[in-house]
Amino acid sequence: MLKPNRNYDDLKESFLFVRIADRINDYCKRHPDKQVLRLGVGDVTLPLCGTVIRALHAAVEDQANADTFHGYLPECGTPFLKEAIAAHYLGRGVRLSPDEVFVSSGAINDLGDLPDLFEKDSSALVIEPAYPVYVDTSILAGRPINRLTANRENGFLPMPDRDTRGDLIYLCSPNNPTGAAYTRSQLQEWIRFANDTGALILFDAAYESFIEDPSVPHSIFELGGARTCAIEICSLSKTAGFTGTRLGYSIIPRELSRSGKNLHEMWFSNRSVRTNGVSYLLQRGAEAVFTPEGQAETRQQIEYYKENASVLMQTLDRLGLWYTGGKNSPYLWFECPRGMGSWQFFDYLLENIQVVGTPGVGFGASGEGFFRFSIFGSHADMKTASDRLLRLLG
Amino acid sequence: MLKPNRNYDDLKESFLFVRIADRINDYCKRHPDKQVLRLGVGDVTLPLCGTVIRALHAAVEDQANADTFHGYLPECGTPFLKEAIAAHYLGRGVRLSPDEVFVSSGAINDLGDLPDLFEKDSSALVIEPAYPVYVDTSILAGRPINRLTANRENGFLPMPDRDTRGDLIYLCSPNNPTGAAYTRSQLQEWIRFANDTGALILFDAAYESFIEDPSVPHSIFELGGARTCAIEICSLSKTAGFTGTRLGYSIIPRELSRSGKNLHEMWFSNRSVRTNGVSYLLQRGAEAVFTPEGQAETRQQIEYYKENASVLMQTLDRLGLWYTGGKNSPYLWFECPRGMGSWQFFDYLLENIQVVGTPGVGFGASGEGFFRFSIFGSHADMKTASDRLLRLLG
Repeated sequence: MLKPNRNYDDLKESFLFVRIADRINDYCKRHPDKQVLRLGVGDVTLPLCGTVIRALHAAVEDQANADTFHGYLPECGTPFLKEAIAAHYLGRGVRLSPDEVFVSSGAINDLGDLPDLFEKDSSALVIEPAYPVYVDTSILAGRPINRLTANRENGFLPMPDRDTRGDLIYLCSPNNPTGAAYTRSQLQEWIRFANDTGALILFDAAYESFIEDPSVPHSIFELGGARTCAIEICSLSKTAGFTGTRLGYSIIPRELSRSGKNLHEMWFSNRSVRTNGVSYLLQRGAEAVFTPEGQAETRQQIEYYKENASVLMQTLDRLGLWYTGGKNSPYLWFECPRGMGSWQFFDYLLENIQVVGTPGVGFGASGEGFFRFSIFGSHADMKTASDRLLRLLG
Repeated sequence: MLKPNRNYDDLKESFLFVRIADRINDYCKRHPDKQVLRLGVGDVTLPLCGTVIRALHAAVEDQANADTFHGYLPECGTPFLKEAIAAHYLGRGVRLSPDEVFVSSGAINDLGDLPDLFEKDSSALVIEPAYPVYVDTSILAGRPINRLTANRENGFLPMPDRDTRGDLIYLCSPNNPTGAAYTRSQLQEWIRFANDTGALILFDAAYESFIEDPSVPHSIFELGGARTCAIEICSLSKTAGFTGTRLGYSIIPRELSRSGKNLHEMWFSNRSVRTNGVSYLLQRGAEAVFTPEGQAETRQQIEYYKENASVLMQTLDRLGLWYTGGKNSPYLWFECPRGMGSWQFFDYLLENIQVVGTPGVGFGASGEGFFRFSIFGSHADMKTASDRLLRLLG
């Protein structure tokens, strides 16, 4: 008897972005003359940089000629890209073997797929407010979910204590949605906790390229003890504008094991059974990101977005609003003024100044009363939005 | 306590292609002067056709300009590709709504991911010899596996009877590895069986573009009753040479449900949680396959490979060897001569005429005594291989 997976019944459909879109549509219908400024969605807007574009064109040409054509590729990634990524990490002082790099179609894919390495009764530990994928993939797997609350009191960077329980610890730093980032010493404490309790850290480093503060590590493997307790999941989505082009990678140390099972080897088996690798074209495009030219050009794009962050941070400072993020992250997470709730503030901004952000409560109950702006728009839009915010709230 | 997934212990590492590579390497070391002809691997060799190449270049240019740049795309596929695929099916008389097409990174991904829609105690039914992915993904899921034997007696096309048990039925037609293809009336019987028993058919149509025989359906949805019992999984790997470029799709009818749960909606939820869609570049390349020019050019490539099939079929006919495939498939599956076992015959061909194929027993016990050739090489190599086979075995 074929039985549908009951875990799907427990999935609350995420109405957050649907609800936001509905409210914007409704507003625009009522006010067709008004210009709405969107600081809500975390999607890049700048096109791919020239070095990546040239590499993609060259890769397409490779596929046009019998002599350079590529059929099936290694399931875990081609050597040229794994070596480029390992060399990039070495530049930060992190020594990896290229075979510790597993190329993926994006961080979201690996975040959902990697937990398959563990029995379904191993629990997840999610810090809320959270990227909804951590919760939803755990629900689909039927995994128990423990929650740790991030709030203003702990600077949205909660630390483990003797009551903290969880086998698979999702750490996102710099964080989506809060933009808060663990320092080296804070992250070291999480590593100690994981090694002491036998837990595993799934370290989501998707926003590492926005880090400015030298006390904030780009990779968990910059820290001692991480190789025995962590998998790092990364992506070129925000680093190089790959949200629609797609490519990510995960780092699994060779020696990482639990209960005598080597997790690196288990993941190699998983990929060999479940995939035929990632497109040759995309791997060549990704390789170009890690060249000196690619690094310089993607850095310029990050700097462009960071000017937006700077404008918004000045605005929030002038308004006296408490916030995290902006400095090491493409997100600013701030307390709604005058004690407003997240959705109340959403409507207030939309109706009065036509600025759209994301209600913090959409990322978990502890986000109530907070609001997220992303910095991926144009300088002109960001300036206009800031002026309107100052006019309304100043 | 974090527990590694015990199902991985049950995964027998597939030594088939490793063992083949080892034997070839060993032979080449001993005989560096000999030219080895490879008819083993099922990987394409012709480059992507011009129409697809032009579409890929244009898509790269779209990503180079702010006005045409694409960030996040719909998780289940972009409308332009879903509409192109639906229109292609309509050309065969199969009416689909574009939203019934789910774009994927390849058939292998969906073959492993789709069974997540069902509880782990729902059983798999695998026809052996089989594409190893059906067995290995079921092992990783901890799913009970029932086997149905394909053999010379049933023409490697076994049919269900009252003793047949299985909730998730993997049907690959035309088949890998045997090349045998179910006719319309045979497939109709499987549909009746699935509807009667409440089972679900996972119809792997990866080789449909090689079909010549009008009695063999390209899509299971050409047949009545399929919309209530089947999901079709397809790929451009063999149709358009996308093995290293990657793109596939699955068809899930809107009304497909089991125990009151709509499977189409469940899969939509799965994709929304687990992915951010497939690369814009690859979806544009795939769209070009379904244009009239793309269809004509990929058809020419299939015809090129089919000339190889024709040469090999004539050779096997002259040698009086019983075989399936070749006509509707890129594989020929034949009985080893003189009662030889699969591996014995492998060594015999390698040592004597330096021709490499795939031992049938590598696809399951019932493949013992059989051998697979694939037709993806050059005409010159295929002619040489045929001459050598005739000389050795004639």
